[in-house]
Amino acid sequence: MIHIGVLGGGQLGRMLALAGYPLGLQFIFFEPAEEAPAEHLADRIVGDFDDHQKLQELTDQVDVVTYEFENVPVSAARFVAERRPVYPPAAALEVSQDRLIEKTFFERLEIPTPPFVAVDSLDHLKRAVQQIGLPAVLKTRRMGYDGKGQEILRSAADVDAAWQRLTGTPLLLEGFVAFQRELSILAVRSRNGEKAFYCLVENEHRQGILRLSRAPAADVPAALQAQAQRYATAILEQLDYVGVLAIELFEVGGRLLANEMAPRVHNSGHWSIEGAETSQFENHLRAILDLPLGPTATIGHSTMFNLIGTLPDAAAVLAVPGAHLHLYGKTTRPARKLGHVTVRADDIETLNRRVAEMRRVLGAGNE
Amino acid sequence: MIHIGVLGGGQLGRMLALAGYPLGLQFIFFEPAEEAPAEHLADRIVGDFDDHQKLQELTDQVDVVTYEFENVPVSAARFVAERRPVYPPAAALEVSQDRLIEKTFFERLEIPTPPFVAVDSLDHLKRAVQQIGLPAVLKTRRMGYDGKGQEILRSAADVDAAWQRLTGTPLLLEGFVAFQRELSILAVRSRNGEKAFYCLVENEHRQGILRLSRAPAADVPAALQAQAQRYATAILEQLDYVGVLAIELFEVGGRLLANEMAPRVHNSGHWSIEGAETSQFENHLRAILDLPLGPTATIGHSTMFNLIGTLPDAAAVLAVPGAHLHLYGKTTRPARKLGHVTVRADDIETLNRRVAEMRRVLGAGNE
Repeated sequence: MIHIGVLGGGQLGRMLALAGYPLGLQFIFFEPAEEAPAEHLADRIVGDFDDHQKLQELTDQVDVVTYEFENVPVSAARFVAERRPVYPPAAALEVSQDRLIEKTFFERLEIPTPPFVAVDSLDHLKRAVQQIGLPAVLKTRRMGYDGKGQEILRSAADVDAAWQRLTGTPLLLEGFVAFQRELSILAVRSRNGEKAFYCLVENEHRQGILRLSRAPAADVPAALQAQAQRYATAILEQLDYVGVLAIELFEVGGRLLANEMAPRVHNSGHWSIEGAETSQFENHLRAILDLPLGPTATIGHSTMFNLIGTLPDAAAVLAVPGAHLHLYGKTTRPARKLGHVTVRADDIETLNRRVAEMRRVLGAGNE
Repeated sequence: MIHIGVLGGGQLGRMLALAGYPLGLQFIFFEPAEEAPAEHLADRIVGDFDDHQKLQELTDQVDVVTYEFENVPVSAARFVAERRPVYPPAAALEVSQDRLIEKTFFERLEIPTPPFVAVDSLDHLKRAVQQIGLPAVLKTRRMGYDGKGQEILRSAADVDAAWQRLTGTPLLLEGFVAFQRELSILAVRSRNGEKAFYCLVENEHRQGILRLSRAPAADVPAALQAQAQRYATAILEQLDYVGVLAIELFEVGGRLLANEMAPRVHNSGHWSIEGAETSQFENHLRAILDLPLGPTATIGHSTMFNLIGTLPDAAAVLAVPGAHLHLYGKTTRPARKLGHVTVRADDIETLNRRVAEMRRVLGAGNE
């Protein structure tokens, strides 16, 4: 029996375990929080990421380690990697945890990004604004997620206030991109170098939080899919990456700019549980175990809705044909991802009808 | 959070839990054996089915109870039903646990069966053989499964030996049916009476154990599917049934004879995890929770292979496109169901190619 250690015990870990049990795997989650979505369906060690004794306890019990949370301290990943194989490699965490390192890394691989400048003082910021122009987005270099740690600068009058709100940690100013749409690609690479790619997915965010993903994205020319796969391939190979990698992209004038990457299974890939021949969760596990990757082909068309802050009536959701409910077992809290619903259909017309119905069910909170 | 108690902790329970976590459910399994496929992914009470204190411990912790093993003693189900709702109803257990009661029940509902006669002595058996003719099958009325408790009588010379092997428990003689093929139907009825049916599935047994299921069965006229649904409807309504019901059928000369029923999710429905819009496991849970049933439509074509006694090389299985591996976490033992593989494809030609490939991978043991 192969035992997988997972750093983090959130919904991504929960869905990894659900995909892994059929492969005969067992899971041990390492998670600082007392309450964790993965807690009821696998063993768990409650510990802080700097508690080497607890981390040792994990590595003693498992064959391979992965993570489901990209803010796992690199030092924890390195400590574990000295004892057991860790996939994706700790270097991927290092790159993705700092927006400046990440964007510089993209640049080095000739992956286009929005313009960006590091900002260390108000003076710097003012010079950066002149260089990049407005609107622009001031972001913390580290620990930003779900729209946290970001301020949009629309006019020069916003600069001081934004600086006041974010100062105290290294910052980055990015050009505000008037994109046509937000896309993402999920790629996976196994230990022996086999690679597979899912279709480009179209994402809608509100208040910085992903609300909806459509898979496949509509009207994607083959060249655009190929461009996304080239970006992903460059990253996978540069990092000797193993596992699922997500890249968030902006489509601007027919080309793709890389916004950020996540070295893990990703919210914009949840549709793959029902909407692809092999889910991102199963392919992540296959990759880190050096098993053949499964087909990433879509099965019909899917739209995934995140359930944020409040839960809809389960019966009403399940009354929509082709609706698949995924709850994470979390307590309700504003702006918290509590679950998701994927609506699937064989053809886009049927999907559109079902999606319209689902929007009525989810109402203002989650539509 | 809704807690589901499950009597039995085998692979069917394991797959129920895997289908139930996304619905936000929690599970407690009640199982006499120390080792159980469901053990790592949910809480468990180890106890005998006649241990009322342990059963009480279960009912104290759950909202609703189901079972995944049809030989749960009816007395245990009734004890639990006095404390918590139990679905399917205990009456369904009573019917399915005794082949004589079951066949008499079918007869009463005008569901045709092979000819049958109860047998209580060697004299009875000899008269029954004259009445029904040979070949015939002598079966124990109770506790038979996977081909156990059965003797085929091909000539009069077999009668005494078969009697010697099975005597000591009530028996039944059934006419041996020269069927064209074995089919099964899975039906589901929810607490509010909503019903749904999966397509007829074609099954292949060897040494009394299910080896392979094809979904949908090839060349099924609408009238045959309708006939199976009529049988299922009669049973569901007569028993005020709630949950998934499986009926094994023989196709003979264009009509269906009922062989037996199982008041639970069923091995011949495992294909539905990938091959139907909603799996049998999820629909069973929806039914017992009075949630709307999900669509039972097939997604392409599927063939399920049981993994019996030995396990194939996982990497070789997963290298076949569209292959989905399901291991049950059991120790290897001859004739034991250790897992299954479902191969799915959008069209039958692709499926046939993949199935041929899978047969080569599984080899003599499991093909």
